[in-house]
Amino acid sequence: MIIPRTGIGVDVHAFAPDDAPRPLWLGGLLWEGERGLAGHSDADAVAHAAANALFSAAGVGDLGTHFGTDRPEYAGASGLTLLAETARIVREAGFQIGNVAVQLVCQRPKFGPRRAEAERALTEAAGAPVGVTASTTDHLGFTGRREGIAAIATALVYSSAP
Amino acid sequence: MIIPRTGIGVDVHAFAPDDAPRPLWLGGLLWEGERGLAGHSDADAVAHAAANALFSAAGVGDLGTHFGTDRPEYAGASGLTLLAETARIVREAGFQIGNVAVQLVCQRPKFGPRRAEAERALTEAAGAPVGVTASTTDHLGFTGRREGIAAIATALVYSSAP
Amino acid sequence: MIIPRTGIGVDVHAFAPDDAPRPLWLGGLLWEGERGLAGHSDADAVAHAAANALFSAAGVGDLGTHFGTDRPEYAGASGLTLLAETARIVREAGFQIGNVAVQLVCQRPKFGPRRAEAERALTEAAGAPVGVTASTTDHLGFTGRREGIAAIATALVYSSAP
Repeated sequence: MIIPRTGIGVDVHAFAPDDAPRPLWLGGLLWEGERGLAGHSDADAVAHAAANALFSAAGVGDLGTHFGTDRPEYAGASGLTLLAETARIVREAGFQIGNVAVQLVCQRPKFGPRRAEAERALTEAAGAPVGVTASTTDHLGFTGRREGIAAIATALVYSSAP
Repeated sequence: MIIPRTGIGVDVHAFAPDDAPRPLWLGGLLWEGERGLAGHSDADAVAHAAANALFSAAGVGDLGTHFGTDRPEYAGASGLTLLAETARIVREAGFQIGNVAVQLVCQRPKFGPRRAEAERALTEAAGAPVGVTASTTDHLGFTGRREGIAAIATALVYSSAP
Repeated sequence: MIIPRTGIGVDVHAFAPDDAPRPLWLGGLLWEGERGLAGHSDADAVAHAAANALFSAAGVGDLGTHFGTDRPEYAGASGLTLLAETARIVREAGFQIGNVAVQLVCQRPKFGPRRAEAERALTEAAGAPVGVTASTTDHLGFTGRREGIAAIATALVYSSAP
């Protein structure tokens, strides 16, 4: 019998300070002309939330456990690389991936025009459907004040045990 | 074989300013005597989060794509109308709706006494079970300071493909 | 036929003021030397979010309904007690519990080193797998400023009706 398991993941990154600008990577894409996020890796909150939700569903640690700041080989790693590696770890632990759904929460960038492109990149990395929706917080809170970007994701995985 | 898909949705609305008061609509209900929320539509964060979670699970866009500020015909539209239209779009894309669960996050109004009434209205609009739970943030953050109201929802849909 | 239902739960507690310190309970564990959280019960946000997600999935009220401040017998109750009682209520309503996934959001304590211990305690209380992942908000928002701790959870339950 196949038993689905639910998982949830959150990821938040602050914008990089003006005196140490970085490119913005979000949903596996480079956003030219947009202010970038600070972080150990490429700070792709969408890819990271997706990875966290997969770890959560499978019950095999989290982003910090697998790719934390004590793992120098992941410094600057792309969100797509981390997501692909996450999917590999989850499958190796005996799970199939159903789907991952990410809700991006920020005032900018406007995600809709590149949604399909981002979903293709994330889906290819995970080897399973990853969807992204976006909303603002109506200028409230840290995302509304544009101090940072948040993403929250759910995932379904299936135990492939008999 | 029937494959469930998970989705997640967030919606936030700021309270309307004192010099432009609006009625409060939440969970498909009018809350007399409560401060209203600002927004393009009726600002019903509970109904909007539910709709976003359904779009997310089905992978067919989001609230902004379908009912955004560039769609004047939805100006002032009720949350129940948007939720019913969302359910129609999701079903037309080939999915059955399992259930939707919404967590309302605000200091006020106290939702519990009207929970059953709201769940009936939302369930009728979606044509599938919609549940609502409520919590505060212990006076922290923008919901705690009563600058606005947040809702977060998950949904399960099923591909009805053979 | 067995139909899964999704649920979502959020719980937030503010840190106790310096002039009224409390011990920190989180994930069913006592965290010695860490600043504690304020609340009616033991303020275990991880256990409470898990309980809220189970209530949400089953559609049988929420933490406030069952264990609210108007229920003096739950004053100071442990999160594990509330989670066990929640699981009992959910099963009594005719549901089996699939799994619960909790994402803890805080700057401190560092959860990873005690993750396995917490998961064992929560899983035993719920009588079903409860996993916990953790992330920070990069010093943003109320969790980033260490005003409080947030947890968000999803759950899957199954109707055991024929």
